[in-house]
Amino acid sequence: MSEAILSASAYRYQSLAAEIEERIHAGVLLPGDKLPSVRNCCTARNVSPSTVFQAYYLLEARGLIRARERSGYYVAHGAHQAPPEPEIGLHTSPSSLTVDVTERVFALLQASFQPGTVAFGSAFPAAQHFPLAKLARAMAHNARHFVAHTMLDDLSTGHSGLRRHIARRYLADGLPLHADDLVITNGALEALNLCLSTVTRPGGTVVVESPSFYGALQALERLGLNVIEVPTHPRDGIDLQALQAAITQHQPQAIWLMPNFHNPLGCLMPEANKRQLVDLITCHRIPLIEDDVYGELYFTARRPLPAKAYDREGWVLHCSSFSKCLAPGWRIGWVAAGRFSQAVARQKLTTSISTNAPSQAALAQYLEGVGYDKHLRQLRHTLATQRDCMTQAIAQHFPAGTRATRPEGGYFMWVELPEGCDALALHQRALAAGISVAPGPVFSASRAFGRCLRLNYGLLWDARTEQALQMLGQWCCEMTRTGAQGIAPCGS
Amino acid sequence: MSEAILSASAYRYQSLAAEIEERIHAGVLLPGDKLPSVRNCCTARNVSPSTVFQAYYLLEARGLIRARERSGYYVAHGAHQAPPEPEIGLHTSPSSLTVDVTERVFALLQASFQPGTVAFGSAFPAAQHFPLAKLARAMAHNARHFVAHTMLDDLSTGHSGLRRHIARRYLADGLPLHADDLVITNGALEALNLCLSTVTRPGGTVVVESPSFYGALQALERLGLNVIEVPTHPRDGIDLQALQAAITQHQPQAIWLMPNFHNPLGCLMPEANKRQLVDLITCHRIPLIEDDVYGELYFTARRPLPAKAYDREGWVLHCSSFSKCLAPGWRIGWVAAGRFSQAVARQKLTTSISTNAPSQAALAQYLEGVGYDKHLRQLRHTLATQRDCMTQAIAQHFPAGTRATRPEGGYFMWVELPEGCDALALHQRALAAGISVAPGPVFSASRAFGRCLRLNYGLLWDARTEQALQMLGQWCCEMTRTGAQGIAPCGS
Repeated sequence: MSEAILSASAYRYQSLAAEIEERIHAGVLLPGDKLPSVRNCCTARNVSPSTVFQAYYLLEARGLIRARERSGYYVAHGAHQAPPEPEIGLHTSPSSLTVDVTERVFALLQASFQPGTVAFGSAFPAAQHFPLAKLARAMAHNARHFVAHTMLDDLSTGHSGLRRHIARRYLADGLPLHADDLVITNGALEALNLCLSTVTRPGGTVVVESPSFYGALQALERLGLNVIEVPTHPRDGIDLQALQAAITQHQPQAIWLMPNFHNPLGCLMPEANKRQLVDLITCHRIPLIEDDVYGELYFTARRPLPAKAYDREGWVLHCSSFSKCLAPGWRIGWVAAGRFSQAVARQKLTTSISTNAPSQAALAQYLEGVGYDKHLRQLRHTLATQRDCMTQAIAQHFPAGTRATRPEGGYFMWVELPEGCDALALHQRALAAGISVAPGPVFSASRAFGRCLRLNYGLLWDARTEQALQMLGQWCCEMTRTGAQGIAPCGS
Repeated sequence: MSEAILSASAYRYQSLAAEIEERIHAGVLLPGDKLPSVRNCCTARNVSPSTVFQAYYLLEARGLIRARERSGYYVAHGAHQAPPEPEIGLHTSPSSLTVDVTERVFALLQASFQPGTVAFGSAFPAAQHFPLAKLARAMAHNARHFVAHTMLDDLSTGHSGLRRHIARRYLADGLPLHADDLVITNGALEALNLCLSTVTRPGGTVVVESPSFYGALQALERLGLNVIEVPTHPRDGIDLQALQAAITQHQPQAIWLMPNFHNPLGCLMPEANKRQLVDLITCHRIPLIEDDVYGELYFTARRPLPAKAYDREGWVLHCSSFSKCLAPGWRIGWVAAGRFSQAVARQKLTTSISTNAPSQAALAQYLEGVGYDKHLRQLRHTLATQRDCMTQAIAQHFPAGTRATRPEGGYFMWVELPEGCDALALHQRALAAGISVAPGPVFSASRAFGRCLRLNYGLLWDARTEQALQMLGQWCCEMTRTGAQGIAPCGS
């Protein structure tokens, strides 16, 4: 079967599954409801039985439907059991702030890397989810065929074969980029930092989302930049009206956003909003630094386009990497910087010259095959399933009043705990028990989000993980009882 | 034979060869003079015949002595033929300057990377001088044994095994460093930039040497720092009196130097001067950023100590890498930042998180064996031999009045052309003929050194290289004839 056919059929079954899932979450399909038979579904939608079976298997794996022998598929009990979503935050300050988060973030990160920790606080999925053995084979094969003089070729912009592969993937997804538009970097974080250094000057102001990836806040702090935090909605992405007001009031030098599967919210900005966003920044001639590292980890029917896809005048500096979806620890990222391409390439040359050559060559070779798409399908499936597990565990074990986002990709869930809970206290208590969480205050320069957590559902999922979530829920219940006036009702 | 014995004997023959070479250059031994017989030399110095033979072979390979059948070894004709050394520069400005070199440097670098160019202007030795096949085997072997979860270990500071190897090598050379003192970086340039960002603030002033590595000037330009250029002597390194005056007058935030095999001069700062230098910066509490990337490429009897070896109070931020001596293109460097260690580690984590994991693991494995020392001995021998070839070619083909440094390590020679010559014009003319040089003005913020060149003698040396040097010499002769008043005498 060719890769094109594979992709089309993959698209169909995922699309069907996504549609059914949406109906379950919307309460159109209720627990115990019977799903259409495979034959009826085939006729109604003009798809093959294998497409329907695959969709049903997927939903079954996610715990949303159950097969009953000789009867068919039924919506599972607890399938629509999900905590309510958080509201858009009013936590945020509309004024420009200096940034001072680095110390807190370091304390958090160091704790999360203790071996044996159940690492809900980690920024990476479990290494076991990645095809490291296959990458190693590509590396070994490639290493045997090194051509000496190529080691110094492609200085600064990176391995031309790898850049072609990346560009080709974007093109297939509907974003026409050329290999020459790309600079390979030491992970996306270097790309983002190069972009930020290119388009800002110390003392300037940059808009970020609220809550926001702490790496962005650390970068602003390091470069002596001020920050405007603009609220981001768990469904719609950054509040475009608030963004426009911030632009008018503060004339920021740049905007740093994550429209696809935002860290920490996990939310996906709708396409229409992305288009409006790019119109807005283009009109004001403000560079938009787009962090798209989770773009490939979608549970939706197809890859969501990045904001870069709507960029006609080159104001979007689009950054991504293989660190979250293929090769953590390899530190291979890239940037397509639009009108700032040459300036970013020069920043790269003067800060780290170029990016590790053997790894670039090995990745280029790995991408020759169909293994990457196969791996991604598997990884998306795993993450989507584990998102559901986490959603249900939170509904079951966390106190009433807990809210949680419903990520459509990536591996982060944002949890808002009820009154009486304190994320930093929970973080401390959990650490002592070998569990890490990412407490809300590290995601804001204004130290808001004191009752919020970012939880990583991309770790290895087993009984210990379930138990750790149960314990977290229990401690939150205790907090609501002791911290709040009355005794709050608690699940389980 | 154990590695320890190998090293001791390596030391003895190199030491003997260095001593004889010095006598030849000093004119104590003249062309045609007979060297002591192997037997006499053994008795006089209490060394083995093999030590003497090795020393004589080395000198013969460098063209300094010739064997006559059944008679013995004689000083070669032309052995002491070397152009005079440049004087210390008066080119330099004692005032603080803003930096604006990046455009010129890019034009130069792009030209130097055209395939097929005889790349005297390159910053790297020829890739063929490196044990790439052996490194590839280490990479392949290592790749097969990846342990998944280690991919995310050692975040930020780097692979612990690699850090131990690096620390062990320093210890053997007389610089006691601990693995925990080190942070692995994307090459030395990232290390240097992290140090610079850590100890400076935009608008501050930094002392560099004059001439100076253009990467330092580009870094200052990017970070909005001003520069003080302090003259550096081809034999003694930076002028310590001038440095003291600059410190008193300008209160710099940092000093960025290259005491071992300076780029572009190739000079080696004497140990006593290094000690004085560290005393001076310690007394003034000014961070010294030391770039030691050429330290392993010594032609002297033993590895020259870096300034870090004299650092008792942690004011020296010592940076180095494998890019110039083992694995170009792998981008693996490191920093031992003394009292700034934690701050630099955090800069690393917030700019690029960590350094390519597979390459670090593969290098750690390669360093387990004795291959690296064997490779280094071979590389030093090659570079020393080619330094002599270049010295003689300059003496033979360049116009009278040409001066050239006598590097005791590394692969850069600094050439000062006589009146009437113009390095930028020569650069243009050479490029058109497929030859690159690094013109002097890129090594100074004040655009001095208009008659100087940096030439790389680390490329593959063959008839084409010799011919290219001859052509460069010829064009310089033409320039002196047309540019200057009279007709200058020319060699060849």
